Amino acid sequence: MDIITLDFGSGGTKTHELINNLFYKYFANDILDQQGDSSIINKLNGRIAITTDSYVVDPIFFPGGDIGKLSICGTINDLAVSGAIPLYITVGFIIEEGMSIKDLERIVISMAVYAKRCDVKIVAGDTKVVERGKGDRIYINTTGIGILEDSININSSRIQVGDKIIVSGTLGEHGLAILCQRQELSFKAKIKSDCNPLDKMIRAILNCSNNIKFIRDITRGGLSTILNEIEYGRGIGMVLYEKLLPIREEVSFICEVLGLDPLYIANEGKVVVIASNEDSDKILQCMRENEFGKDAQIIGEVVEDERERVILKTELGGTRLLTMTENDLIPRIC
Amino acid sequence: MDIITLDFGSGGTKTHELINNLFYKYFANDILDQQGDSSIINKLNGRIAITTDSYVVDPIFFPGGDIGKLSICGTINDLAVSGAIPLYITVGFIIEEGMSIKDLERIVISMAVYAKRCDVKIVAGDTKVVERGKGDRIYINTTGIGILEDSININSSRIQVGDKIIVSGTLGEHGLAILCQRQELSFKAKIKSDCNPLDKMIRAILNCSNNIKFIRDITRGGLSTILNEIEYGRGIGMVLYEKLLPIREEVSFICEVLGLDPLYIANEGKVVVIASNEDSDKILQCMRENEFGKDAQIIGEVVEDERERVILKTELGGTRLLTMTENDLIPRIC
Repeated sequence: MDIITLDFGSGGTKTHELINNLFYKYFANDILDQQGDSSIINKLNGRIAITTDSYVVDPIFFPGGDIGKLSICGTINDLAVSGAIPLYITVGFIIEEGMSIKDLERIVISMAVYAKRCDVKIVAGDTKVVERGKGDRIYINTTGIGILEDSININSSRIQVGDKIIVSGTLGEHGLAILCQRQELSFKAKIKSDCNPLDKMIRAILNCSNNIKFIRDITRGGLSTILNEIEYGRGIGMVLYEKLLPIREEVSFICEVLGLDPLYIANEGKVVVIASNEDSDKILQCMRENEFGKDAQIIGEVVEDERERVILKTELGGTRLLTMTENDLIPRIC
Repeated sequence: MDIITLDFGSGGTKTHELINNLFYKYFANDILDQQGDSSIINKLNGRIAITTDSYVVDPIFFPGGDIGKLSICGTINDLAVSGAIPLYITVGFIIEEGMSIKDLERIVISMAVYAKRCDVKIVAGDTKVVERGKGDRIYINTTGIGILEDSININSSRIQVGDKIIVSGTLGEHGLAILCQRQELSFKAKIKSDCNPLDKMIRAILNCSNNIKFIRDITRGGLSTILNEIEYGRGIGMVLYEKLLPIREEVSFICEVLGLDPLYIANEGKVVVIASNEDSDKILQCMRENEFGKDAQIIGEVVEDERERVILKTELGGTRLLTMTENDLIPRIC
């Protein structure tokens, strides 16, 4: 059995073979072992956070990660930025006929490693197989469930003038790594995806400040799109300072060559945080103590602005309006 | 805006347009309206059931339903057969570039209708777009969450000799409807899929008997595969009686013409139940009072059998061994 055939999606012996040899083997835990139509978990003592994401990244293996790592980290990060502690993940595979089982195993192992690292159990799964040319090797849906402690109150309606905007690290790596790998662009400097689980870093900053009003992972659309998604509606806007933006030299260089803007390129291991001015230095220190936050920077602040814009002050002293992305500059980065 | 382009998957303005004009419009509820990275739901007072399924059915519209109805009913049925009350569903769309937005809207409406009918809230969603030739119009993942009351004790380890095997209606319609539609086979009798939500019927039988030991929806692999999935391991087997199997005449006829066996063809609106002999008539009556259980039948019983087989007693007095399906007779039926 070297490649996936349609029979693996039949629900019969081949499906069971796959489930037993791969999924139960690597994902094993007390809940998954129930092997029921639904998995039963114990009562959760608090509000529950739920998130779902499908991953269609192309290519499925890239410098710094693969679709499996991405599908676990992405969903863990979505729960974490809501202030929740990630607990459970369900996994739905859509596999194209002809995919190598070795590649599938590599992806499954990668998922198992990151789930374990984040103390998250994979509690339910599903496998479908589609004919050649009706998919692209593998698509993965992960749905995450976490618990939200009563003390958590991240709420963008608390944002006010004077608050600081903080990013947890350098911008643009994930999208650029995918693009370079896909187009087989060879630059001297290899860009690695920053895809990583941020649950522990986010937990740490929430423990050090009660004045965190907004956290979001900087994914599709990049920092610029994400800051434009916040609905202020109260005569406030944002100013970012170009000279404060943490961007690696090689990312700047490749962006310049390709005519891309790192402010619109996705990360998969960075967050943007808005917090009160008083607590911002404390939060910054706390981020920098975490392995995934060592390049954190305060990059701007919340200001009065009737037109509710996101403005970039350039190094040359000009201003530039940042808007939401209209086009998909780099499709299928997650 | 008539067709889906890659820009709809960018996370930017086009994605927001789609989310606002379709998903928030039809799925609207207090939880989805939070519009966060995760959705927050209140504490659930009991054990929690979780299930996930991806739907890749081809064609996406078929007699008796569409991929949207199927994705909601399938997940509701998976929760219901575990004894849970379905509460929440998350939805992940993978859309192929070029899909008509009108078709997408039709599917979304269908999902909204069946979610409402089952008192289930769609609480989170995700949309990805893949290039032409990398998908097949639309794939949908639905993950369902339900609550399991303490009184529920469906457990196949309680199955014992003498228990009755009951099916809630006629076999084979869904798979056959898909096959006929896909191959453009025109028989005089049109087969309609039986895809339907069974939550209320299952609730009713659980209310009328505490001696229900196994419930499963008869999907991929058909009745034969599903009965073979039960791990008895205690010297017991099953006997089914061909003359008692509820199979529509037109289904038998088409199966004969195509060389198929209705015992291996999927339904999407039928369950098989194993319950104590004493309660079996009561359960049967209870099923028959529900619109989706009116053709329910007791079809066999649990017997002593060291070899733990599933046996069919044919109308001609012979016996036939029923096994798990090996091949995908009709791929992509769900």
